Formats: sequence, structure tokens, C-alpha cells
Amino acid sequence: MSSNIKRALIGAPFPTSREKHERLDKTRALAVFASDPISSNAYATEAIMSVLIVLGSGALVLTLPIAIAVASLVLMVVFSYIQTILHYPDGGGAYTVAKDNLGKYPSLFAGSALLIDYILTVSVSASAGVRAVTSAFPGSAPYSVLIALTAVALITWINLRGVRESGTIFAVPTYAFVGGVLLVIIIGMARSLGLFGLAPLPVYHDAVPASETLVGFAFIWLLLRAFAGGCTALTGIEAISNGVKAFKAPEARNAALTMVVMGVIAMSLFLGISYLSTHMHLIPEESESILSQMTRDIAGRGLLYFWVQLFTALILFLAANTGYQDFPRLSSFLANDGYLPRWMQNRGDRLVYSSGILILAVISSSIIILFRANEIAMLPLYALGVMLSFTLSQAGMAHLMSKIGKLEPGETEFTGVTTIHYEKNWHLKRMLNILGATMTGIVFIILVATKFTEGAWIVAVAIPLVVFMFDRINKHYQSVAQTLSTRDLLEEDLMDVADVAVVPIADVHRGTLRALQYAKRIADDVRAVCVATSPDVHERIERRWARFPKLTAGIELVILDYDYRDILTPLENYIVSVNDEEFTNKLVTVVIPEFIPEGWSAGVLHNQTANFLRRRLRSKQNIIVIDVPYHILPVDELVANGRKVDVDAGPTADDGEQQKADSAAT
Amino acid sequence: MSSNIKRALIGAPFPTSREKHERLDKTRALAVFASDPISSNAYATEAIMSVLIVLGSGALVLTLPIAIAVASLVLMVVFSYIQTILHYPDGGGAYTVAKDNLGKYPSLFAGSALLIDYILTVSVSASAGVRAVTSAFPGSAPYSVLIALTAVALITWINLRGVRESGTIFAVPTYAFVGGVLLVIIIGMARSLGLFGLAPLPVYHDAVPASETLVGFAFIWLLLRAFAGGCTALTGIEAISNGVKAFKAPEARNAALTMVVMGVIAMSLFLGISYLSTHMHLIPEESESILSQMTRDIAGRGLLYFWVQLFTALILFLAANTGYQDFPRLSSFLANDGYLPRWMQNRGDRLVYSSGILILAVISSSIIILFRANEIAMLPLYALGVMLSFTLSQAGMAHLMSKIGKLEPGETEFTGVTTIHYEKNWHLKRMLNILGATMTGIVFIILVATKFTEGAWIVAVAIPLVVFMFDRINKHYQSVAQTLSTRDLLEEDLMDVADVAVVPIADVHRGTLRALQYAKRIADDVRAVCVATSPDVHERIERRWARFPKLTAGIELVILDYDYRDILTPLENYIVSVNDEEFTNKLVTVVIPEFIPEGWSAGVLHNQTANFLRRRLRSKQNIIVIDVPYHILPVDELVANGRKVDVDAGPTADDGEQQKADSAAT
Repeated sequence: MSSNIKRALIGAPFPTSREKHERLDKTRALAVFASDPISSNAYATEAIMSVLIVLGSGALVLTLPIAIAVASLVLMVVFSYIQTILHYPDGGGAYTVAKDNLGKYPSLFAGSALLIDYILTVSVSASAGVRAVTSAFPGSAPYSVLIALTAVALITWINLRGVRESGTIFAVPTYAFVGGVLLVIIIGMARSLGLFGLAPLPVYHDAVPASETLVGFAFIWLLLRAFAGGCTALTGIEAISNGVKAFKAPEARNAALTMVVMGVIAMSLFLGISYLSTHMHLIPEESESILSQMTRDIAGRGLLYFWVQLFTALILFLAANTGYQDFPRLSSFLANDGYLPRWMQNRGDRLVYSSGILILAVISSSIIILFRANEIAMLPLYALGVMLSFTLSQAGMAHLMSKIGKLEPGETEFTGVTTIHYEKNWHLKRMLNILGATMTGIVFIILVATKFTEGAWIVAVAIPLVVFMFDRINKHYQSVAQTLSTRDLLEEDLMDVADVAVVPIADVHRGTLRALQYAKRIADDVRAVCVATSPDVHERIERRWARFPKLTAGIELVILDYDYRDILTPLENYIVSVNDEEFTNKLVTVVIPEFIPEGWSAGVLHNQTANFLRRRLRSKQNIIVIDVPYHILPVDELVANGRKVDVDAGPTADDGEQQKADSAAT
Repeated sequence: MSSNIKRALIGAPFPTSREKHERLDKTRALAVFASDPISSNAYATEAIMSVLIVLGSGALVLTLPIAIAVASLVLMVVFSYIQTILHYPDGGGAYTVAKDNLGKYPSLFAGSALLIDYILTVSVSASAGVRAVTSAFPGSAPYSVLIALTAVALITWINLRGVRESGTIFAVPTYAFVGGVLLVIIIGMARSLGLFGLAPLPVYHDAVPASETLVGFAFIWLLLRAFAGGCTALTGIEAISNGVKAFKAPEARNAALTMVVMGVIAMSLFLGISYLSTHMHLIPEESESILSQMTRDIAGRGLLYFWVQLFTALILFLAANTGYQDFPRLSSFLANDGYLPRWMQNRGDRLVYSSGILILAVISSSIIILFRANEIAMLPLYALGVMLSFTLSQAGMAHLMSKIGKLEPGETEFTGVTTIHYEKNWHLKRMLNILGATMTGIVFIILVATKFTEGAWIVAVAIPLVVFMFDRINKHYQSVAQTLSTRDLLEEDLMDVADVAVVPIADVHRGTLRALQYAKRIADDVRAVCVATSPDVHERIERRWARFPKLTAGIELVILDYDYRDILTPLENYIVSVNDEEFTNKLVTVVIPEFIPEGWSAGVLHNQTANFLRRRLRSKQNIIVIDVPYHILPVDELVANGRKVDVDAGPTADDGEQQKADSAAT
């Protein structure tokens, strides 16, 4: 039944061989991967301006230069990641690059930072999207947590159904947002340049001079903070490099192309918005975003304005979806390397990493509930992880470029992950990577420093904790591998099987007689062990045993008299003593007769002694447990099978007594 | 660890042989069993008066006659139950008497009615006791649900520790309440009769005449309702007859004596309170109970007043405890007869029916939460069950007396439960029983009729539903008994074991090789079955299999190629086909190699394929499952055991590949 519900929700299972068909073409891939960095334009320019405004609105002229600096950084990161994609065509992003070039711990820190950031991408973007909805419909504000959780559930469902659908569903809003904002920028530029005879743009000239003049360090610190704020535009850029394998063939080339298109689009919007808002002397206001002010001034409160507002909300939900592409994929890499549970690398019925998707849904939903869907409160935790992973990834690429520089022209080398060969301009590339690593490293430090008390400390603590968890999980898998290793395996290493079968019984009936017969098949020394909690029980067992001389021939009946009701303890002690004293260092077999009731509800009517005993014996090293099931059939089915039953008369006196005694066994 | 917590909470287990010592002497038994009927005096008189007041305070003179009628009924019931105790010295009360004399369904209705009433005894008494506490400390009123639940938890704990302690702890408040109220009544009587030179009692003479005069049916209906209200004094009377076995020997005599003492005390208090409150012309008020008014007028607001108020609260908690004596005991009777889960007849570590105690605690706590600890709202559900069981019990006794009358003097007969012999005055006894059954039957009908819409319908629906549940449970146990019956058992009835062992494996490693070795011990036809989800896996398994020619000699390797990831389905299908097609009607053995991780937390890191497979195979009739465990040890322990491990170098390429593949198996 539960499998029918599952099928109705997420669809019929896909065969493994269908995997190739589930990949993304470039148009869909751009929609899936670019929504996160492109959606940053909803707030990135404003993030710069809201720092500068401290010096008075006159200082806002600094917005464009800072935006150009951010854009340069973005271009540098894009370049670095194109290098990564081309050198690592199997994908992997910061984690793989750091692993291949810097070693275990840098790669684990990159992995941990990215996983945390992906979770926050979902929480922040879903919450920000809901903020856009509740701004449009203020009456819905009290339900913001509920709406955000519903959005996350919807995105989870779409992703569980498989990647192609998610690409198709998500393509429209991304392109609608990009198209809308681009149109606004083009109209704005045309009006500002006086083209096509359009009315010139309104320009506000009420600039307030700085209330105090910051000099030296304080001024530079403020500029850095403004720059750091603008760096929210960088989140999500690395997604493509991590997901090269989700592209249609040729994967690396398609991914690199998509990366370039994404960088161009995102920076066009970013610089366009930054130029126009500086040119128009817009001032950040709490009640209305810069993007909204700009759109309204350029295009009026018409169709285009509402188009942009609507698709701002939708693209933010798509940005949340990016986390659903990245988190399960990176988790599967880490699981494959033994740093996360192995089952996280298994694909589900629809060829997606279902377990990663579900874990992401649970954690990000918890954060939404914890922060009451307030994305402003979450922002100080966000983007830190991305900057750390940029730094590590570019440092790794710089290291790779050094290796490439050491090669002779024509020579190739396999690094363990990818094959490299000599490149002419490796010096230049390495310089760019070093510069990028330094810049993003500084931004990381600025982010931690300026936001530490606002919540960045949580992430600063969580990243090493997750690395510690990776390490512990890896230690476990090392133990597994060593224990199971067949290296130097000799036949005599495998333990002998003792010629004994212990059969715990509570009574003599069809079920236990069947188990005893089975035990006789596999061992010569068969012992039926029964715990007698009173002299009555002792006597009854002996009497009933004597009734089946043929069936019990050659079997030793061991009755353990016990003055407490907890019959598991004497059984366990007896079995352990057989193992320890009689058959040291051999495998001892325990045959457990087990009732299988006719349905799950009937299970409540039996006291599960067999289950509890099996669970206790699991912890013993040298004990093998055999379940001999005995299925309980409804009386009418027994009659149908030709068994002689006597329902009306009820059990005979002896059987009635037996029926009662069974309670101890079942 | 959990067993240490258990021991700290409820104490060390008692040996079964200590059982006799845990019985109650008469003093303790009275405290345990009589608190319920005696505590009724806190509200029984008032229950009569609050009906009569409808006619004006002048009608309150009818209180004493009605109280005398109730007291007669109580005496009749007490007499009937003494007969029951003497004729059924092994105990059992209404359920046993109805079973022995009226047959299955009357006894099940009696059992169902009593179980429900016992649950309500706990909920009502705990809530009423809390009401007494919150009346004394009005600030605690908002926490009444919490206090009631704490009280129930405390009573549960005391009962789980064992019956002797509960008798000791509970003796003091019962006797303190009885002594206090008796003293108040004696002083009141002395003052009313002008003895010892005490001041005469205040008498209020502002009787209000009836606002309307009821005639005929309406008047009788009102009298019946007042009488029914007073019948709350009868709840709990049957407890002793149900618990004869809890008494010290001679059980029946001690129980009968205790019954008489209890009846005398309860009725002395009831008639005393009724007489004095009628004599003083007290009028029921919402803010102060009749008992409180009477005590205050007779003894003043001094030590005696607060003594009575305090112990009123405490005896109500003791009344709740009565449910903890009765419910588990009656449950164990019903379980013993196969109408409740068999494990309810098992005694726990401290020789009490722990499971019954815990079930009672959960259900009565739920009712307290549901009714927000408001006992007034629960009262319409209460006392119905007791009246139905009285009726059935006395009808049964009347039937028994008829049987006794048919015997010749000197002749004896065994009814199936008890031995009877001719008694001279059987006619008289039978008349009394018939009268009692009729009276309590009428009271039952009055209770249902007058309280139906106030909640009595819930119980009227619940009683037959519980009987239906008894019936279903009994059908299951009949199936069990018939399936396991050894009657007409022939050796050839037990199924043959097929000479085959199917070993599902995910890879070739120490764990699976051990399982294969074991399989070779028990069957000649051993088949290692592996699901290959890709050609890579197929090829790898064949290669690794070939590495162990000696260990795998004579074992067939079956590789099932499968294009989905759900490997359980092809494994299950293969095993079923072996059973259905190759070895029809024989037992087929499946040997499952199973990882046992080093701790519970490590279990999360494996995907439990072995567990899931075992669970699926449980539903198959002819499949026997063998778990061959393989314990994962921490690497340092392996070294200590002399195994060659190579942690720093990591697994070899081949072992690394194997390590990854293990994920599918574990």
C-alpha cells in the first residue's frame, strides 16, 4: 500500500539504463543553475548602497565603482570555474578540486562549507520568495512560515520526480525574470541617452552630504563592508561546475558555455541596475526595494512593473531549487568517498538522490521554522560557506596550474581524478587563480568579521563540526573495509561451525517440533532448552515431551528452573555458556521457532520473545540465529487445507493448557 | 542502561517464590479496597440533595429516606458479594460469576463494563482529588491537569513497585479520613441529642416550599433520579470479591470479613452524614460541599475541619489507586481466558501485572487530558459499568442458588470454577439475589436514561465495542491453538527440508565467505545470489568470485542482472521461484550474511538490506532464514586481535572498490 502511495506521488520507477535521457540541455540547465546567482540581483545592488548610505546619500556615487569591483570578482570566479570545468570534465567543483590538489582536510572543509551553504540557499531563497508574495498580499503575512514550508515541499516533490521535469517547469520564470529586467534596463538606458525620442529619466538631486567624514581605516572598512555586501551576487556561481554531469554530452563544453552565458547575464543585470540607480540618485528605502523603485521610475506602474515583481518572487523559489540540485549531488560525492552514509550515493526510483533531497528538505524546513521564515535574520549565516569554498577551489586550481607548468609540452599526467597536459599560458592562469583565492579569502574574512555576532558564528562553528562528523563516518567505513578485507585471507581464518543446535522452546507444539526437526537436519547435538518458571511448568514440559518419543528421539531436553519471570536472561546465559565453555571459538547455532501471526495487528497479541532473544544474541560474536517460522492461519483456512480442527468444542484440556503456555513463547 | 534505570525506579526483581509474602493483611486490604466506596461519602449525600432541591429546600427531608434506600441496596450488594466470595474463594467477581453461571457473552459484558469503570475510577477520583487541592490553593487551579497527571504517575509508580508497599503507604489516609468523619458524626450526634452538656446543633429553618408540585410519574422520576445519584456510593464495592487472591490466607474468610467492615464503615458515614445534614436543614451550595458545611457547623473551622478536608483529598487519590488493583487483575483473568493479549497475564519484575498497570495509566491519563481534569464532566460516564456488572453478577448468583437447591443434602458438584454443595436457605438467598439484580438493573437503566446525552452514550457504545474486541482476540488465539495443536500429529505432517541454501550476497568479502561456508555445512546445493545493477557490477563480482576458487568450490554463483536500483525485489522473486518451482512444499533455507556495526549509531551508516530482506521473507510460509552475523570491530581492536591491518595506506585499489560495493550489502 505504501508503495502505491509512493508511486502515485513520484511516479513509476525509471530503469537504470534510462539515466542518460534524464540529463539537461543548455536552455534548461541555465534555468536550473543560474536562478541562484541571477536572483541575487533582487538585492545585491541594494546591499552595497545600504552600507554606503551611512555616509549620507552623497556617498552613493561609490556604488558603481564597488559594483564594478564585484563584477570583476565575479568574472574572475567565472573564469576560474571555467578552468575547473575544463580540467575536471567529470564535475565535482570545489570539493573535488581541493581533494585533488590540496588533500583531505581542505576538501572536507570545502565540502562542509558548501553543504551548509546549499541548505541556507533553500531556507533563504524560499523565505525571500515568500517575502515577495506577502509584500504583494499583506494579508498573507501571518502565514509566511506555512507558505515557505509549502514552497519547500513543492520543490522537494518536483525534485523527487526527477531532474528533467524540474528543468522544464523552472525554465519559464527564469527567462521571464531576465527578460523583464533586461527590458527595464534597455528602456532606462535609452531614456538616459535620449534615444528613440523617449522622455529623459527623472534624476533626484537632493543628495545629503556625509554627516561625518570617515578617514583612513574606518573609510576603507566601510568600503570593504559595502563590497562584501555586494558579494551576495556571487552565491550560486559554483553550482554548474559541481553539476557538469547533469548536462547533456558534451558535458564539459556545454557546462562551460552555460557558465559564460550565466556570468554575462548576471553581470549585465547587476551593472545595469547599479549604473541606473546611481545615475538616478535612488536611495534605499525599507518599504520599497531599489529594483522596484527603478522599475517603477523607468516603466511606470504598468504591466512591466508587475511582471518584474511577480518573476522576482518566482526566481527566488527557483534559487531554492538550486540547493536541490547541488546538495544531493555533493552528498553523493562525499558518500562515495566514505564521508557520509553510503546510502546517500544510491539513486532512488526516479534516478535522483532521494535521500539527499529528503535530508535537505528536513533541515532547511527546520531552519525556516526556527527563523520564522525571516530571511533577513538568516543572511548573516549565508554566503560564508560559498566564499570559503571559492578560496579553497581557486587555491587548488593555482596548485594544479603549478603542476601543469612543471610538465613538458606533450606530456600528460593523471592526478588521480583528471588528466592534465602542458598549457602555454599556465603562468597567467595561475596568477588569476592566486588573485581570485586571495580576493575571495579576504571577502570570507570580512564576512565572518562583520557578521560574526549577528549569526556568522553559528556557521563558523558548524563547518568544523561537520568536518569532524565526516571524519568519524570515514573511520567507521575504514573499520568495515578492514574487517571484511579478503587480503591475506586463508581458509582456516574462517571460524569452525560447532556441531550443536540450541533450540529455545516454551512448549511442545507443532511449531517447536518443526524447529527441532530442522535442527536435527543441521546438527547431531540438538538441545531443546526450556525455562521453567514454576514446578508446574517443569512437570508439564516433561509430560508433553514424553508424548512424542519418535519426534524427540536423540534430542536432549534441557529444563532451566528459574525463579524470576524474565526468561530471556537464563536462555541467553545458557547459550553463552555453551559457546564459551563447550565450543570455544566455534560458531554456535541457535534455532528459534517463531510465530508469524496472520496480520500486523495480531502481532500485538504475542509477546515477541523470539524477537527480543534474537536482538540480544545479535551482540554475540559467534552465534548464528536461525528463524524457523510458523505461520498462524485463520481457522477456516486450516479447514480448507484439510487440517482436522475442532472449533466448537474448543481445545482439549491438554491443548487448552498448551494454548495458555504458548503465551510465553510468542 | 535502560535496565539500570528500570531497576532504580521500581526496584530489584522479586523471585517468583516470594509471591505469597506480597499479599495483604486485613488492615492494609481495607485501606486498599475500601478507599473507593468510602471516598464516595465526599459526594454521595450531596448527589441526592442536588436532585431534590429542584422541588425547593422543603423537599430535602426526603434525603434520609432515599439514603436509607441506597444503604439497603448497599447492604444487599454486600450480602450478595459475601455469598460470591464464599462460593468463589479463588476470586473473580462479576466476570467469573457471570462466566460460571450465565455463559460467555454475559461474562464478557460484565468484564467490559468493569474494565471501563476501573479506568474511569482513576480519571474521576484523581480529578476530584485535584479539585480538593485546587479548592484549598486556588492559585494552583490552572495546573489542575498537570497535578492530576502527576498524581496518576505517582500512583502508577507505587503500584509498579509492588502491592505490599502500596498497602502500607495507603493505610494512613484511609483511616485518617474515616476517623475524622466518624468523630465529626459522633460530636454531631452528641450535640443533636444534648449529651455531655455540649451546645445543641444549629438548625436552619428557612425552608423554601416547592415552587411547583410534581405529581405522579414526574415525582417518581425525580425520586428515582435522586436515588440514582446516591448510588455513586456503590462504586467500588465489588473490588474485594475480584481481589480475594490478594488477601493473606485464609483468603475467602479475610475477604468476607473485610467486606463486612467496609460496608459497615461506608454506610455508617453515609447515613450519619445524611441524617445530620437533613436534621440541620443544610442546603447544597456550589461553593462548599455538604460534607464541608456539616463539618464546619459541627466542629468549627479548627484542626478537625482541616483534617477532614485534607484527608478527603487524599482518600480520593487512594480511590484512584483502587483502579490499579482491579484493572490489572481483571485484565489478567480475561487474558488468561484468551480475551485480552496473553502477555497481560504475565507478572513483571515486582510480581505485579505491569502491562495492565501501564495500559491503565495511559488510558486514564488520556481521559484526564481530554476532559481537562474536570470530574463533573466525567461523572455521567461513571458508575454505569459497575451497575451493569452488579446486575450480571447477582443474576449469576441467583442461577447458582438454583443449582444448589437442586442438589441433595451432602451431594457436591464442580461447576467448572468452584465446588458447590446443598445449602438449607438457598431459597431465601436466591430471592435476595433476584431482588438485588432487579434493583441494580433498574438503577443501571435509570443511569443510562437520565445521563444518556450528557455522556453516558459513550460508555453505552464502548461496552459492546470492547466485547467485540474480546471476541476478535479470542478468535486469533483459537487459530493459534488449532495451528499448533499436536492432536493427530504424525511425523510426516512436518514439512521436508529442501537440500538447498540460497545466500544473497552483494560482494565477495570475509562476511559473505563466512556465510557461504556455513551454507555448505547445511546443504549440498548452495547458491550465492547477487543482483547486478550494472554491467560493471556483474563483471566485478565474477572477477572477485574467481579469486577464491577453493572457498567457492561447489557453490553456484547466480548473478541477476537488474535495471532498477531496488535489489530486494529480484532477490525475493528468485527465492520464491526456488521455493515454488524447484522445491514445492519443502522448506527452503536462506542464509543472510549480516553486518553488525560496532554501535547503534553506526547502524545509520548502513542501508539495512539484510533487515529488509528478512522482513520480506517473514511473510513467506516455507522459508527459513539464517542470519550469519559479521561483527565490525574498530580498527585498533582488529590489530589487538592479531589481524594485519593497513590503516595509513588505506584499502588497496581492489579493497577500496569492494568497500564501496559493501554499501549495497549493509
